[in-house]
Amino acid sequence: MDAAEFRRRGREMVDYVADYLENIEQRPVYPDVEPGYLRSLIPTEAPMEPENYDDIIRDVERVIMPGVTHWHSPYFYAYYPAASSYPAMLADMLCGAIGCIGFSWAASPACTELETVMLDWFGKMLQLPECFIAGTHGHGGGVIQGTASEATLMSLLAARCKAVRWVQASNPKKSEAEIFSKLVAYTSEQAHSSVERAALIGGVMMRKVPTDNCFAVRGDILKEMVEKDKAAGLIPFYFCATLGTTPSCGFDSITELGPICNGENMWMHIDAAYAGSAFICPEFRPLLNGVEFADSFNLNPHKWLLVNFDCSTMWVKNRADIIGAFKMEPLYLKHENQESGRHWQIPLGRRFRSLKMWFVFRMYGLKGLQAHIRKQVALAKEFESLVRADKRFEICAEVILGLVCFRLKGSNELNQKLLKMITKSREIHLVPCQLSGRFVLRFAICARATESRHIQQAWQHITQLTFELLQEPNH
Amino acid sequence: MDAAEFRRRGREMVDYVADYLENIEQRPVYPDVEPGYLRSLIPTEAPMEPENYDDIIRDVERVIMPGVTHWHSPYFYAYYPAASSYPAMLADMLCGAIGCIGFSWAASPACTELETVMLDWFGKMLQLPECFIAGTHGHGGGVIQGTASEATLMSLLAARCKAVRWVQASNPKKSEAEIFSKLVAYTSEQAHSSVERAALIGGVMMRKVPTDNCFAVRGDILKEMVEKDKAAGLIPFYFCATLGTTPSCGFDSITELGPICNGENMWMHIDAAYAGSAFICPEFRPLLNGVEFADSFNLNPHKWLLVNFDCSTMWVKNRADIIGAFKMEPLYLKHENQESGRHWQIPLGRRFRSLKMWFVFRMYGLKGLQAHIRKQVALAKEFESLVRADKRFEICAEVILGLVCFRLKGSNELNQKLLKMITKSREIHLVPCQLSGRFVLRFAICARATESRHIQQAWQHITQLTFELLQEPNH
Repeated sequence: MDAAEFRRRGREMVDYVADYLENIEQRPVYPDVEPGYLRSLIPTEAPMEPENYDDIIRDVERVIMPGVTHWHSPYFYAYYPAASSYPAMLADMLCGAIGCIGFSWAASPACTELETVMLDWFGKMLQLPECFIAGTHGHGGGVIQGTASEATLMSLLAARCKAVRWVQASNPKKSEAEIFSKLVAYTSEQAHSSVERAALIGGVMMRKVPTDNCFAVRGDILKEMVEKDKAAGLIPFYFCATLGTTPSCGFDSITELGPICNGENMWMHIDAAYAGSAFICPEFRPLLNGVEFADSFNLNPHKWLLVNFDCSTMWVKNRADIIGAFKMEPLYLKHENQESGRHWQIPLGRRFRSLKMWFVFRMYGLKGLQAHIRKQVALAKEFESLVRADKRFEICAEVILGLVCFRLKGSNELNQKLLKMITKSREIHLVPCQLSGRFVLRFAICARATESRHIQQAWQHITQLTFELLQEPNH
Repeated sequence: MDAAEFRRRGREMVDYVADYLENIEQRPVYPDVEPGYLRSLIPTEAPMEPENYDDIIRDVERVIMPGVTHWHSPYFYAYYPAASSYPAMLADMLCGAIGCIGFSWAASPACTELETVMLDWFGKMLQLPECFIAGTHGHGGGVIQGTASEATLMSLLAARCKAVRWVQASNPKKSEAEIFSKLVAYTSEQAHSSVERAALIGGVMMRKVPTDNCFAVRGDILKEMVEKDKAAGLIPFYFCATLGTTPSCGFDSITELGPICNGENMWMHIDAAYAGSAFICPEFRPLLNGVEFADSFNLNPHKWLLVNFDCSTMWVKNRADIIGAFKMEPLYLKHENQESGRHWQIPLGRRFRSLKMWFVFRMYGLKGLQAHIRKQVALAKEFESLVRADKRFEICAEVILGLVCFRLKGSNELNQKLLKMITKSREIHLVPCQLSGRFVLRFAICARATESRHIQQAWQHITQLTFELLQEPNH
């Protein structure tokens, strides 16, 4: 395919993308396929000779679309949102064309530098303390990771490295392995599975801290666990706080937890993957109070801030902590301005992802982004009101942002049945969670295209299925 | 920006991309900027109000392009190639529109399933042993990682997990920490820095194995090191072989190393990040002989197979090894068909990257991809001949694929000066490496647009600078 054909096919693809998103409501949000459906639809081997582009595009509808869960359908209320916007898609096209691999400053200076400045822009939008801003002379700053999992892992590894150095400063003979075996990390029992996974990868113990009745970790309980571990000769070194947990969008009490971590010389990382985007609104910013105690902070604009996946922004107070954890400079990566490079992540190569932030921030403006957050929170509140007005249902966690956790009053089995009916009907898509042993339905406002009428329609659908369910003879 | 505006702006962006790539020769391949150049060109904060799209596009030329290292310029000969093709870019546009986060089968069945089948297609193109093919009943199979660094890390972690289980099977009382402290991994002294980094992350020892005069690790030397470590009470558990090392494109002798690893119960991972793509050509496939001994194998189509970054393909013999290393299934990820999901990587979320492979494989066909590899190898051979014909120069490593390592006969200092002149002139871009203590220039065929005339021109430029250098009074 030459440039001329790309111009033609590119235009067609732009229209395909616009058509897809404009008419997404007409597609069933959740696919009706069984595992293995795709293999039988395409050949078992790659073609020897080039194929016709038209055939490939036809196969997108024949092979791919029947198996797609449409995350941007206004009937999609599962998990948390995946961000999507036209400016981000345009920036990604540019990113693909430039196609640089930004593993060092010299590999493409603009890639490294725009990222640093975008993280400063964003940090200011979030009113982060000055220590997290790189500026021209700061010690802190931000970086784009692929996912929150990677940010958590990087913070845990940096904390581990710092803890080893700290222990060895007073006990130079202690081996790394010996120290590793004493290190203890902590996180909420409500934390995302990737936090536990980070500890597994890093080869350190991870304790799950119980939460209060708002599904939040409080200071006293962490303090108690830390004391107990220290008394047993262990070395508490890391706490991962969550702002906006995956099950219920709960908020750990970082104003209580931060001083404890600081006092105990423990690294505090804040995972605000979903909720973090809301902190650009003054009315939600108090939820981030306490960030000044953190060593690192992460949120995913690719969840809720209209920047297409992947774009997970992470700030650290001391760049040296995270760079120092793994610095290695073979000759083929050395260049005259290497200090400006950044090996802050697991993968060495990286795309020019900050272009997406730049396009989105400028095309929406801070006000436009705030409006997006506020609209989705209002939709969640609208859904909450509908649930609260129906005595058969209960709300299971405070609705603070765009997630509503609710259930039918009654057994877990009943709620499992209801979810099964919802999934089977394929009119809307949502997933469950478990809160205090109870099976709960999660209703997350996801798609940019979701409007009040969709919320009303979803609720009508849920109550209709509920009616059918409760009609069954055994109820 | 609504769909109508996206249609218009998208068309403009398609043209911008085509123009950029068609006229890339006219841009200086390496930017003339100093660290920090970008910050002064844009505001210090994000705008409050939405901006005009035309202003943003104007800023792409004003702010971004002056700081871009143009990886797809035919004057770019640095590092290894970053793949780029029009079909891959079209697929990426589609991927952005679908915008699913494929962390489980249910999250988007097509995303998981196309990936599995594409890895089978590709495995067959590479003539991988049957055990690496998933098919409908296989125990092996492939996955797309972001980068080779992630593939290496995953293989090391899986190997670590397996080693712990194996040791604990006969010594149930041994703690994980105790075992970790005895584990030893091995790789070539020529291996990529990310291999050493994987061991640092995993908290295990890593030994660098010396290479022979072709910069290859041979069986006898690994055997010797393993025996020595075992005698010292350590546990050799992992060897990362490289096919196509970063400095010189050297090939470890996997036919010798494989049986040793198998005999010692050590996991053998093969990192063929760059060279691997060439194995789709029958004449280069013998370089992969010995893969049957490997537990895992990785190469980057995003380097040399026209699939834009990121797309790093990894196969394992036993899926259970790599899935089992970190399986965790919280309720919000559970679904009825969860066995078909895949948590084979560090990040939980992932884009629909297999679309790029599907588009590229079909639009080029196996023959078209082979032609691409062969053309670039021929260009490297052409450059090699030019170097060999000039008695002032020497070739420093056998030219097998698309990389030529060469230097001026004489001191390292002389060669450093020559590279400095090349970099300063900005007509071509290349980076150095160190081979047996000698400072060597690497000339890698990178851009898809590179033709014979560019090679001739590059050589003329190098010899012109050499002439100037050797004219200097102190030579």
